[in-house]
Amino acid sequence: MASLLTDTIARIPPLDENALQQARARQDQLTKPQGSLGRLEALSIQLAGITGQPRPRFKQPVVITMAGDHGVARQGVSAYPSEVTPQMVLNFLYGGAAINVLARHVGARVVVVDMGVASDLPSHPDLVDSKIGKGTRDFSVGPAMTRDEARRAVEAGIEVVTREIERGADMVATGDMGIGNTTPSSAIVAAITRRPVAQVTGRGTGVDDAGLDRKIAVIECGLEVNQPNPADGLDVLSDVGGFEIGGLAGVIIGAAARRVPVVIDGFISGAAALIATALAPATQPFIIAAHRSVEIGHRATHEHLRVEPLMDLNLRLGEGTGAVLGISLCLAACKILDEMATFADAGVSEKSA
Amino acid sequence: MASLLTDTIARIPPLDENALQQARARQDQLTKPQGSLGRLEALSIQLAGITGQPRPRFKQPVVITMAGDHGVARQGVSAYPSEVTPQMVLNFLYGGAAINVLARHVGARVVVVDMGVASDLPSHPDLVDSKIGKGTRDFSVGPAMTRDEARRAVEAGIEVVTREIERGADMVATGDMGIGNTTPSSAIVAAITRRPVAQVTGRGTGVDDAGLDRKIAVIECGLEVNQPNPADGLDVLSDVGGFEIGGLAGVIIGAAARRVPVVIDGFISGAAALIATALAPATQPFIIAAHRSVEIGHRATHEHLRVEPLMDLNLRLGEGTGAVLGISLCLAACKILDEMATFADAGVSEKSA
Repeated sequence: MASLLTDTIARIPPLDENALQQARARQDQLTKPQGSLGRLEALSIQLAGITGQPRPRFKQPVVITMAGDHGVARQGVSAYPSEVTPQMVLNFLYGGAAINVLARHVGARVVVVDMGVASDLPSHPDLVDSKIGKGTRDFSVGPAMTRDEARRAVEAGIEVVTREIERGADMVATGDMGIGNTTPSSAIVAAITRRPVAQVTGRGTGVDDAGLDRKIAVIECGLEVNQPNPADGLDVLSDVGGFEIGGLAGVIIGAAARRVPVVIDGFISGAAALIATALAPATQPFIIAAHRSVEIGHRATHEHLRVEPLMDLNLRLGEGTGAVLGISLCLAACKILDEMATFADAGVSEKSA
Repeated sequence: MASLLTDTIARIPPLDENALQQARARQDQLTKPQGSLGRLEALSIQLAGITGQPRPRFKQPVVITMAGDHGVARQGVSAYPSEVTPQMVLNFLYGGAAINVLARHVGARVVVVDMGVASDLPSHPDLVDSKIGKGTRDFSVGPAMTRDEARRAVEAGIEVVTREIERGADMVATGDMGIGNTTPSSAIVAAITRRPVAQVTGRGTGVDDAGLDRKIAVIECGLEVNQPNPADGLDVLSDVGGFEIGGLAGVIIGAAARRVPVVIDGFISGAAALIATALAPATQPFIIAAHRSVEIGHRATHEHLRVEPLMDLNLRLGEGTGAVLGISLCLAACKILDEMATFADAGVSEKSA
């Protein structure tokens, strides 16, 4: 049955072979030993393949930070109360949060989206209202949302990113806010990577030992009760996911369908990427992993996604903070490709045979 | 005997305890879980201690890229001919090199210094002439330079950085250009960290297996012939060093004496930092290691310096390319400290007890 989701997935192209090849050839003519800029070179080539432009130039990076609440938070899995979710959304809108500071630093615009905050938020010109529900249900006792809600969450993400791309966004980063959301993320990672819950569950914003034990037990219980099917992204999302996680999966799918690179942030964005690649394996080459976070399940997430994070700065905040730093490296990589002189331009001798 | 070098070393202060403490306290009041920005938080606190400002703001980062040639290059230790050193200096001056592109990206100014290029360079308003000699002598058969030349190289670096600081530079990055200069750098690292040459010697810009064996043998020979004293930075520098390496050691010492943070680049900058800390252990807290390069001796260098690099991007170019990316992270870290809202400002609930 045709839907925005299936239509969008069907439109995701492969990387552009011609652009990949031209970018690779140009990197080898620039005034530096071949390969000496390491991951920056590989990144520029990937970005050429994503965009289809041999020398991609980005004018308008955007970080899409999606917020939602989680019924499972009532199980005492977070060090913070759920009221912090809407408080932080307001902080984003007033420009005082870490994501605002770092987005300004790298020249990115912040788009804040209410995917499912449990309370009513005041209307604000910079707040996108895509609320699917007032928080998910507690997944430790039943599904977090219906399958229809899961599809609507992903489609809302596609709509948000499509609108931003139509307004000029040409590079997208993902970010999240949602008290308790490392819990559904660990559940998603455990379900999709088929690893034991304890191996992919960390302290989130900072629960103590007892809190961590409780969190693991709650997730194990939720997986037992719901039995998510790892091959079915919408089933995993509806069983143990979150509205903002579904929205971010949609952002990834929608960006890939438009040949826009997606720089993913930390653990929650990683869980969203697992949902996105379960729904649409063709999204994988469009994903750039900005950093490896402190959350222990992040490594398994990157392995499953077959991506290598660019940085490891011991971040564990979310919001898109690591992703916007990754944007800066993507821009740097493409400027190298576009702006450096070639050996011929500069009259520099090449390597001896 | 008093000299610019001894006077400058005597002026290096410890980190400012008061600023460290205020920065630490403010980080804990910002609207994020304590410690959740990981290394960015620690970096901002270090930068507060370096500058003595509880909320440091940087207006004028500068990368100082020093060039020199190496007599030992005639032993066939590099994949490129020495003529590339002056060619690349001209490329820096025309703005076509990787360092120019990346410095523009992060908003840093490039200062190019001739510390000892083997040929005559045309005079250019943006080229600082601090030439100590036309390349060093071949250290595999005797000292690379005299002790007086070594001291003059370090003092020239102090003079260059002091002039830039007086013109407004408030953050300094180090960079290098010199065909063959991973060879003296490996010799310095082997001498000061007391590791076997083969453990700290890599392929530089890309020598093949035979070239690598030759490079190791040449360095072993040079250490045998010269017997550098690891406790005496000027002795190591004069025996097996390079003019640009001495100059960069001076940049580090001169910056520390003025409370200016120094972001060091790759393997050659690391060797310069070993010389700087051998001459002046008090420089250590002023050093920020931007990245771990591909060169295998870089890890031993960082361990000896007791610094943890911020990134690992498989770079092996030098010029200051990794260091300017490090500047961007330093600026990001300080903007977090300075610009984020506190819990009280934003009316966000703190962690439950």
